[in-house]
Amino acid sequence: MDTPTTELFPVDIEIDRSSPTPLYLQVANGIERALQSGDLAPGARLENEVELAQRLAISRPTVRQGIQELVDKGMLVRKRGVGTQVVKSRVNRSVALTSLFDDLSGAGRKPRTDVLEYRVGRPSAEVAGRLLLESGELVMECVRLRYADGEPLAVMRNTLPERIAPSREELLERGLYASLRDKGVRLAVAHERIGATVADAEHAPLLHEQEGAALLTMDRKVFANDGSVIEVGHHLYRASHYAFEATLVE
Amino acid sequence: MDTPTTELFPVDIEIDRSSPTPLYLQVANGIERALQSGDLAPGARLENEVELAQRLAISRPTVRQGIQELVDKGMLVRKRGVGTQVVKSRVNRSVALTSLFDDLSGAGRKPRTDVLEYRVGRPSAEVAGRLLLESGELVMECVRLRYADGEPLAVMRNTLPERIAPSREELLERGLYASLRDKGVRLAVAHERIGATVADAEHAPLLHEQEGAALLTMDRKVFANDGSVIEVGHHLYRASHYAFEATLVE
Repeated sequence: MDTPTTELFPVDIEIDRSSPTPLYLQVANGIERALQSGDLAPGARLENEVELAQRLAISRPTVRQGIQELVDKGMLVRKRGVGTQVVKSRVNRSVALTSLFDDLSGAGRKPRTDVLEYRVGRPSAEVAGRLLLESGELVMECVRLRYADGEPLAVMRNTLPERIAPSREELLERGLYASLRDKGVRLAVAHERIGATVADAEHAPLLHEQEGAALLTMDRKVFANDGSVIEVGHHLYRASHYAFEATLVE
Repeated sequence: MDTPTTELFPVDIEIDRSSPTPLYLQVANGIERALQSGDLAPGARLENEVELAQRLAISRPTVRQGIQELVDKGMLVRKRGVGTQVVKSRVNRSVALTSLFDDLSGAGRKPRTDVLEYRVGRPSAEVAGRLLLESGELVMECVRLRYADGEPLAVMRNTLPERIAPSREELLERGLYASLRDKGVRLAVAHERIGATVADAEHAPLLHEQEGAALLTMDRKVFANDGSVIEVGHHLYRASHYAFEATLVE
């Protein structure tokens, strides 16, 4: 899979010499746009730095710095004898109140969902407390396996009040948040916690990982504007294929 | 260490019935303030829900929900036969452009630093590119082991242009960002990537973990206002003691 059978792809980058944005960042931004639009597909090879520098009429170190930005972000990888290649299956996802399904779709990464469990029933006292349920309210709990480009990426357990829960069929077709939006449910704020663990005997085969492989964990609790709880989620992501990203401002 | 030898701690919580903040959140916020001020120390036991409810004259389910908020955030833990206890050594750190040292100090968690490596020298071409160095500029690379309350928490590798690099002695006394601030260096923006890995033979003993234990990774590149690079960092955190937190708004 790592042989350079993929074609070289000349990226369409516009350089604006009157812009205050440094040239290397213009290069990085141009390539990133091509990645996001899907013009540069996973596995594609970038034309080499010398050619790119000549074509854009900028210096080679500047091109190199621009490419390094995206290597640092995990979007490109330099391979000896191959050149610079678009990372095959890593997902870099912003720390934001977004849906993995929508993020993958937006990046052209063809999401697919298996619904492994789907249950509606009475909540335990603990779950009722976490979801701030009225007495007598039911909950839906589901476990989904999310694929990107045919590769398993995440196991996601979510618990919601039954009154707003999407059906199993809806969860097969789209993401949880898109299903909620269709019902008029508006997400307002979430608390998220990101940790790490290792794959156990249950999750390793689902995720095509070895037992003991590193996984990222994400626990999220999402609130509506009125303070009611929309969902509580516990997700496991393959660290070999996934990272969280954030841009931080002082 | 898990026997209930610690004293019960009556938390000082002010309940304001005229506030729009739900009562359960007032309970959670009150306990969180006591945790942050150090009034509630790691390992301390909370008075039980019935007593707390009576003392504050609110319902027991409301107290339970408030406590559950902090259990969900990983700050409190319920233990059978012990009650609710302040988590001993977990660090929950916001996804923000802050220093681990300052975050620990602010939480009363007594940070300490060992400087394992400290080198000044010529950069490789790759490092020079990542730091956007002028030709001839030197770099400082350091590896630090950070403790909180005497427990190892993180191994941190950082690379900086030598012209702004703190001395080894400065790094022993305070955090990297505090040292930079003292030199008048202003951080403006950072790109951060959070992933996971497992402890190898080099890092496991440093972090008092078994080989194969889950670690969080954080890669950060920090820029000044003029677009110059202040530092590139690669950090490893014990997942058993550490998590990243974020509050997300739609």
